[in-house]
Amino acid sequence: MAAESYLSRGVSPTKDDVKAAVKNQSKGVFPGAFCKLIEDVAGDEEYCTAIHADGAGTKSSVAYLMYKETGNYDWFKGLAQDSLVMNTDDLACAGVTKNLMLSNTIGRNAHLVDGKAIAKVIEGYDEVINKLKDLGIDIKMCGGETADVGDLVRTLIVDSTLVARAKRSDIVNAANIKPGNVIVGLASFGQATYEDSYNSGISSNGLTAARHLLLSKYYYENYKESFSDTISEDKAYCGKFRLTDNLPGTDITVGQGILSPTRTFLPVISRVLAAHKDEIYGIIHCTGGGQAKCRDFGHGLKYVKDNMFELPPIFKAIYESGDIPMKEMFQVFNCGHRIEFYCDESAKEDIMSIASSFNIGSRIIGHVEKSSDGNNNEVIVKYSGEEYLYN
Amino acid sequence: MAAESYLSRGVSPTKDDVKAAVKNQSKGVFPGAFCKLIEDVAGDEEYCTAIHADGAGTKSSVAYLMYKETGNYDWFKGLAQDSLVMNTDDLACAGVTKNLMLSNTIGRNAHLVDGKAIAKVIEGYDEVINKLKDLGIDIKMCGGETADVGDLVRTLIVDSTLVARAKRSDIVNAANIKPGNVIVGLASFGQATYEDSYNSGISSNGLTAARHLLLSKYYYENYKESFSDTISEDKAYCGKFRLTDNLPGTDITVGQGILSPTRTFLPVISRVLAAHKDEIYGIIHCTGGGQAKCRDFGHGLKYVKDNMFELPPIFKAIYESGDIPMKEMFQVFNCGHRIEFYCDESAKEDIMSIASSFNIGSRIIGHVEKSSDGNNNEVIVKYSGEEYLYN
Repeated sequence: MAAESYLSRGVSPTKDDVKAAVKNQSKGVFPGAFCKLIEDVAGDEEYCTAIHADGAGTKSSVAYLMYKETGNYDWFKGLAQDSLVMNTDDLACAGVTKNLMLSNTIGRNAHLVDGKAIAKVIEGYDEVINKLKDLGIDIKMCGGETADVGDLVRTLIVDSTLVARAKRSDIVNAANIKPGNVIVGLASFGQATYEDSYNSGISSNGLTAARHLLLSKYYYENYKESFSDTISEDKAYCGKFRLTDNLPGTDITVGQGILSPTRTFLPVISRVLAAHKDEIYGIIHCTGGGQAKCRDFGHGLKYVKDNMFELPPIFKAIYESGDIPMKEMFQVFNCGHRIEFYCDESAKEDIMSIASSFNIGSRIIGHVEKSSDGNNNEVIVKYSGEEYLYN
Repeated sequence: MAAESYLSRGVSPTKDDVKAAVKNQSKGVFPGAFCKLIEDVAGDEEYCTAIHADGAGTKSSVAYLMYKETGNYDWFKGLAQDSLVMNTDDLACAGVTKNLMLSNTIGRNAHLVDGKAIAKVIEGYDEVINKLKDLGIDIKMCGGETADVGDLVRTLIVDSTLVARAKRSDIVNAANIKPGNVIVGLASFGQATYEDSYNSGISSNGLTAARHLLLSKYYYENYKESFSDTISEDKAYCGKFRLTDNLPGTDITVGQGILSPTRTFLPVISRVLAAHKDEIYGIIHCTGGGQAKCRDFGHGLKYVKDNMFELPPIFKAIYESGDIPMKEMFQVFNCGHRIEFYCDESAKEDIMSIASSFNIGSRIIGHVEKSSDGNNNEVIVKYSGEEYLYN
């Protein structure tokens, strides 16, 4: 099941070919968990270790555009949070929430991205680490590498790797998701108590589609370095917005909406696990694959999502570009909630009230049933009178 | 001191601006060591931890060209060794040689680099890990991320992150390099006992210069995706060779020469440290900065390198392109030796005989003196009757 409009821009949202390429790799000590976990680095049998890698993806291309249009280097800062949180929140879904050690890999074209821009990314890492420290989350910056690879990287790429040890008894293994589980979803958008401003909820997935569907041909004409030359002209920057235009339904610009730093749910997940670990069977981070991401976890399950958030403004604007069907929207973007707790009925109210204490919206997204063949997984998203099946 | 011909191709060999960007970052528990080392991940005071990141750089662009010209996906395999060894050998220089845990980050343009290519890179990791296991070196593959980022990455980028714990008493701290040290260099070229064929010695540094100085306009005309459009036409693919041409002075092609997988010196360094740890003050991996790399270590030192290897064939071919002065050659490429032991006289003979037992050439490259002002470091390379100063 390829998402055609996305693939035409050089992105495979399901990454089926990548999954095939790594299918023979070891599954680690908790097969089916949201992150790969391995034998403890220190040889302690009560512990396991995670080494996890992810990055800000093509969001850096928008940061570059904003910098070029405004001359303000500060736009590069948020990429650190994007790159870091894509890792922290994956790990938190496996129950790994403490003693995080960070390294980064930055690649750049030194003709276009200078030392000041790199300094801003580094500053961004320092800022988000300090902010998380205030929330009781300890991340140690351990080093990194900035490579000049202009023949490979058009502008800038910002990747992070997080290392952590966790008690095996703390691990949440999504392989345990089962029929009867309730799905509690946490809103990706709004303004959490620990955020400085409204967050569009875009996070760091689907940014290639978001840019080309929202932004106008002005960027095609002026910033060839900001996109792949393997994208045909009719697929590049097809939107109606300039970065400085208002994002309809909000008080922010389209540029601010696309660059909203990826929200971390680590404070919420930590608190929920402390209170309800035994009632939780899995936690899913709706990243690559969007709302169909859960399909990769558990066995013989039908994921029924029949009470989705209404599309937040940024996703509504993307959908209204008219170039992406709703079925694909749910597969490329989180579309409103990025974290899902799969839990017993008994835990749902308190999870929602913990989220609410951080001013983060939540709702009962749906539930889990046995799948029709009892073997393969399938996901059904019901939204606005329509039903979308991912199997 | 900028290396002008290199910067014109979007690469800063000295990375002074990057060094400035990270200058306020913590130096870790062994300031001045070749790699950053931090408090132990498991809290053991006798240990420290390293999280180290590096990659194959623009070597992947050549792998892509070879694949396109031959249709053979196997050319992608060697990138795994390049990406891994750039990390293992950095860590080995700090005395970290055991219990290595690996994660990778691969970025690709899915229009140009398909799942088969990614599978070959993964296969390459498996192969090099198995080969090193036979040599007594244990590397555990812990996972990774392949991202579709065609708007950022023209073809393919392959980065690795290595995590390791090491006893503090095993650490080699290059801050200890001092006047009187002898410099023993290990050849980057030839065929080690654990290599399947002749290695050109190119490793993974200076690949942007190597490609553009060796390869001909044919690649400019046919493979625009293989280089930055910020490189002016007169700087792109200015050489006289096709990939299939013979590399003068060898039995291999230019393509094979450029793609020689980066040799690991881990077996040699492990053996040397087991026998001579107390006589060794520092080990330098001549990567970014080439023969001037050592300048970043120690204090108030003059590095005198007056007995260099004769330029191996690949570097000779690059130099003979006529577009890069010898002074810059030594700053961009290892030019013959990639590992330097800074040691007492008493250790030099045995280090050379250990290298020889692996069929790796070695020689006394030079020695260390006090620098002229007793404060800043400087490097002097004497070669073929000329003297080159890096200060």
